[in-house]
Amino acid sequence: MSHPFSGVTVLDLTQIYNGPYATFLMAQSGADVIKIEPPGGEHLRKRQGASGAAMPFAMLNANKRTMTLNLKTEQGRAVLLQLVAKADVLVENYAPGVMERLGLSEAVLREANPRLVYASSSGYGKTGPYRDYPAMDLTVQAMTGVIDSTGYPDRPPVKAGPAMADLLAGVHLFGAISAALFARERTGKGETVEVSMMEAVYPTLASALGLYYGSAGTAPMRTGNRHSGMSLCPYNVYPTSDGYLAIITNNDQHWNWLVEALGCKELAADPRLQTVKGRCENMDEVDAAIGAVTARFTKTELFDLLIKNRVPCAPVRTVPEVINDPHLHARGSLQWIDHPEYGRIVVPSSPLRFAGEEKMPYRPSAALGQDTQAILSERLGMTPAQIASSSRASSGRVRSSIQSYTTVRSAIRHCPSRFSNRST
Amino acid sequence: MSHPFSGVTVLDLTQIYNGPYATFLMAQSGADVIKIEPPGGEHLRKRQGASGAAMPFAMLNANKRTMTLNLKTEQGRAVLLQLVAKADVLVENYAPGVMERLGLSEAVLREANPRLVYASSSGYGKTGPYRDYPAMDLTVQAMTGVIDSTGYPDRPPVKAGPAMADLLAGVHLFGAISAALFARERTGKGETVEVSMMEAVYPTLASALGLYYGSAGTAPMRTGNRHSGMSLCPYNVYPTSDGYLAIITNNDQHWNWLVEALGCKELAADPRLQTVKGRCENMDEVDAAIGAVTARFTKTELFDLLIKNRVPCAPVRTVPEVINDPHLHARGSLQWIDHPEYGRIVVPSSPLRFAGEEKMPYRPSAALGQDTQAILSERLGMTPAQIASSSRASSGRVRSSIQSYTTVRSAIRHCPSRFSNRST
Repeated sequence: MSHPFSGVTVLDLTQIYNGPYATFLMAQSGADVIKIEPPGGEHLRKRQGASGAAMPFAMLNANKRTMTLNLKTEQGRAVLLQLVAKADVLVENYAPGVMERLGLSEAVLREANPRLVYASSSGYGKTGPYRDYPAMDLTVQAMTGVIDSTGYPDRPPVKAGPAMADLLAGVHLFGAISAALFARERTGKGETVEVSMMEAVYPTLASALGLYYGSAGTAPMRTGNRHSGMSLCPYNVYPTSDGYLAIITNNDQHWNWLVEALGCKELAADPRLQTVKGRCENMDEVDAAIGAVTARFTKTELFDLLIKNRVPCAPVRTVPEVINDPHLHARGSLQWIDHPEYGRIVVPSSPLRFAGEEKMPYRPSAALGQDTQAILSERLGMTPAQIASSSRASSGRVRSSIQSYTTVRSAIRHCPSRFSNRST
Repeated sequence: MSHPFSGVTVLDLTQIYNGPYATFLMAQSGADVIKIEPPGGEHLRKRQGASGAAMPFAMLNANKRTMTLNLKTEQGRAVLLQLVAKADVLVENYAPGVMERLGLSEAVLREANPRLVYASSSGYGKTGPYRDYPAMDLTVQAMTGVIDSTGYPDRPPVKAGPAMADLLAGVHLFGAISAALFARERTGKGETVEVSMMEAVYPTLASALGLYYGSAGTAPMRTGNRHSGMSLCPYNVYPTSDGYLAIITNNDQHWNWLVEALGCKELAADPRLQTVKGRCENMDEVDAAIGAVTARFTKTELFDLLIKNRVPCAPVRTVPEVINDPHLHARGSLQWIDHPEYGRIVVPSSPLRFAGEEKMPYRPSAALGQDTQAILSERLGMTPAQIASSSRASSGRVRSSIQSYTTVRSAIRHCPSRFSNRST
């Protein structure tokens, strides 16, 4: 059975959301992704429990094999470089400078394997004045104008609920790795690729940028759920008896269909409301009148009625509704699994669909260090004795084994956790 | 000069944001992207003017060559299939079914070129019960839980300002194309790839999904700018004299640094506020007290002060501030250009950075049909006479030329514009 990245080996040093999403997409496209975690597990695994990080961890780490390695020891570093020599890709999303402090600079990796694709992602990138600023999803949303362009005009701006900065960076990173692997097929050389969260978010501002230029800076930056140019009406999220429905009328025909479907004879007859311009001039009144009628329906009733009448609309789905969405389950993009650690949960497969290929069998996220022995034996041909010795460096539990490396270790500065790219 | 996709030819039938972002990333990675528009131009080009679509059009269509072709004529379709025979990739984001109605089904494309990577994206995908639902950025945000998880708990939910659904789909599509091109180097076969906007958005719900499962459905879905688990404090967007600043305290040390930097001796001494738990129990009071102090600073003063004191934070940048961001300009990810049609504007380059390669020279978005003649001559070896004849079909202006194809044309149903994947 063949998938686009079958036969490609990825060493995955990533954490939290950004990097792990890139390697999730690699794994679900057929790559052998080896997730290498520090002895205690990566941040997201450690964070599980009350904060609800188990589900994101399961979701982002499916189809990966897991091993532990203490990169702060010389032995751990040596094992990593042996793995690098036989790998195709190494991915990390540490804060800039961390890999260098671990003695794993680009030059060191490249020396171990000139064909390696070395991919990294951070909040602001490896160069430039913001390089060392703290990068979480919220701070990047603040820095990129996402927050300023979200919310109601009479309230402070508000973050986008989803972790869009993290995930946008992750999928860009996947794209960069894929492009570099393609290029390597032709050139034989490995490339070093980088994605910054801030740069990955910028293009999503398209409409805000357009309005800013188009209005010479006079357009409002936040319009709630109304059209960002305030030039379509009705265009809003309207109440129903059990939730909300987004309704969009792009033209007079949509308006006519809408008021007819809702039985709003007065609105239909109102001479002021026959044009988009007229409706926009009376936006508060129109929104209130439409909202008063929509509130009499349930969300599902109203959606069915308007779709039947060809009015563009969509229910505002709650998270539990999305988890159980019949369309996503029908397409196989969501499925129920019995996770060995987390029980019965819904998990997504990759949004990338390759027609005619059998779908990757879903392998739930693995326990910490689950495949350490198998990987070291299979990739490096290590004997059980060597693995036992190495696993002491891997687990970091056996002090004596690590202490013999203290001189080297002291040369490797401790990675600061303060500004690591912990996000969300 | 070599870039990852140098030598790769992409036929680009895309429109608005989603598909054009995928092909923008291809173009900026070295591919020869031929943007094929209907005689009047694609929707986003046509929309320019008051609505501020010029800037998004310029941004998403840089480094592409442009030609027009009327795919509703048999001659236009024939020219396209000749181009397909010599291309590597064809990308489109029409509503599902449109390509089939144009007589350009997957089977027809594959027959013209078995090595073609055929990539498409739509709101909900080519299969499943939602296939034909109207898909704009707002409706997909509604359907995927983005709106429900954004905003203040005491107000209706609100859309994310940025066009995140469109752009997320676009970059996933780029990733799928890149993976398929890689696979083709090994298998010799072209693949058909698909991305739905809804599926591309789902993973960004990670935190909301985690909270939902972690709290057995009891967690609030909207917390404004507060921590989504309501389990960190201070964690919010605070007022300054000229805007807002996002501040995050992940632990007691951050809290101590913050109150010390702000000179809040009473807060520092308050026994109730010595633990995260205690601060969360008094969240309204803490947020109000911190906000009262932050309001005395300017945004820049406060950011500089807190960063110096190692408190994670970021200014809530306005769109004009982002356009002029010194970091993005220093890294070369934003630049000022003199656009032949739109004047002096700031444009982004691809977020994908390939180290050691010379950056792609930036070519501003081209005028409608600017390269039609050059492309037909160079790719199909058409003579000036043939180009003149074809350009009548391309422009759709010369009725007589098109009328000779009416019998075929009548068999090709008109593409419905109502539910085409116009987004945002």
